[in-house]
Amino acid sequence: MTRAGSKQRNIKIVVEYDGTNYGGWQRQKNAVTVQQVLEEAVERIVQHKVTVLGASRTDSGVHALGQTANFRTTSGIPPRRLLTAINSQLSPDVVVRSLVDVDDGFHAQFHAKSKIYRYTILNHRIRTALNRAYCHFVGPKLDVILMRRAAKFLIGRHDFKAFESDADPESNSVRTVTRASFKRTGHYLVFTIEGDGFLYNMVRAIVGTLIEVGRGKVTTDGFRDILESRDRTFAGPTAPAKGLCLVKVKY
Amino acid sequence: MTRAGSKQRNIKIVVEYDGTNYGGWQRQKNAVTVQQVLEEAVERIVQHKVTVLGASRTDSGVHALGQTANFRTTSGIPPRRLLTAINSQLSPDVVVRSLVDVDDGFHAQFHAKSKIYRYTILNHRIRTALNRAYCHFVGPKLDVILMRRAAKFLIGRHDFKAFESDADPESNSVRTVTRASFKRTGHYLVFTIEGDGFLYNMVRAIVGTLIEVGRGKVTTDGFRDILESRDRTFAGPTAPAKGLCLVKVKY
Repeated sequence: MTRAGSKQRNIKIVVEYDGTNYGGWQRQKNAVTVQQVLEEAVERIVQHKVTVLGASRTDSGVHALGQTANFRTTSGIPPRRLLTAINSQLSPDVVVRSLVDVDDGFHAQFHAKSKIYRYTILNHRIRTALNRAYCHFVGPKLDVILMRRAAKFLIGRHDFKAFESDADPESNSVRTVTRASFKRTGHYLVFTIEGDGFLYNMVRAIVGTLIEVGRGKVTTDGFRDILESRDRTFAGPTAPAKGLCLVKVKY
Repeated sequence: MTRAGSKQRNIKIVVEYDGTNYGGWQRQKNAVTVQQVLEEAVERIVQHKVTVLGASRTDSGVHALGQTANFRTTSGIPPRRLLTAINSQLSPDVVVRSLVDVDDGFHAQFHAKSKIYRYTILNHRIRTALNRAYCHFVGPKLDVILMRRAAKFLIGRHDFKAFESDADPESNSVRTVTRASFKRTGHYLVFTIEGDGFLYNMVRAIVGTLIEVGRGKVTTDGFRDILESRDRTFAGPTAPAKGLCLVKVKY
């Protein structure tokens, strides 16, 4: 009999979740978090304590299609069976989409090359009942041409302090954004942003400000000035969490 | 001052709802229904009792994008304002998408020419977290070629008693189906069926039986035999309500 269970493995998982009922990804004292329910599910299967380390600390209410995480285990359960077993322990709003063994050195957070977030705006006179948990409803007509023009200023290497909530003035807030685009699908405006990292509430503050551009309250030049100001008080409100989804983490 | 409020109007509305938390469309004693919350919302606005008459009595848990209904009112509030006012009285899982004045004789149920229902199956090894309320998850691989072939037998004028739950043997169960097709979108199989009317649980019993065809448990000829048997005990199980959505009612 081989002692498959004694060797330490490093496991990479891709996780989808509906953030509605969670206090975000990261473990905390006063709310149930996705990290916590995942760790509990994995522990019930592998029968030892684990830390499930996520690439991104999504906020309370934010969704994910492709959060990526890794954990270490001495369990010898083959990947496919381990995936099924973990999913059997999770509630319907969290699911592990894939599970693979990776090199011992792999670290879901530090080795992430870029992250793709999607923010969905419903821009229509009438709200939606069926998709209400996954979009932000904006009644007044938005000018997507202006929003696209403003979003282009985000591309490149910038100090994004103007879009960071509760920022430590000493912290490094320089990030590189490689994509910031809007796609219109029916009454939906879907904003996709890709970058090497995102500050606290950064995508939601960007979207909140772009909505002000779309409503004509901020000009495209004004948007660039806000970005350059590095001052959060100039930017628009933080758009609601439910419109945001972490789509993919690239390595 | 014109007494706009004194003339009786007949109003047609198109309603979208997430059926998850409702005991179906039709008013009943032991559950909150969509008809009830709509009538209560309209009554708060028009300040008199109303009956909101729906084209289709969707079952408990079934969704709608385009349920259609009509009600009579003496209110003089113009359509667009009336729509906004009613929506302000509804919870986030129900919304009136459109509202128009129609001829006095219009009856949402009796004048419906056809109804389009959609049933969404997620056919994948892994379930979904984000879309879980709107699809039926089937893990084993389904053969959509066979399902399409079987579904063709539904088209035309038939006695659908084999797919009717709690049928009264004396009742007329002859209906005409004009469309019954599957579309594959990623891991989703979307079944669309259009007909001049549907019996109690008919779409869900059809889908439950087509899933058995897709799994190889019932042959396509066997499916035709079930339809021709007019015996509900031969058909497959009733597929879950949450995969079903009333898409449109045509007049």
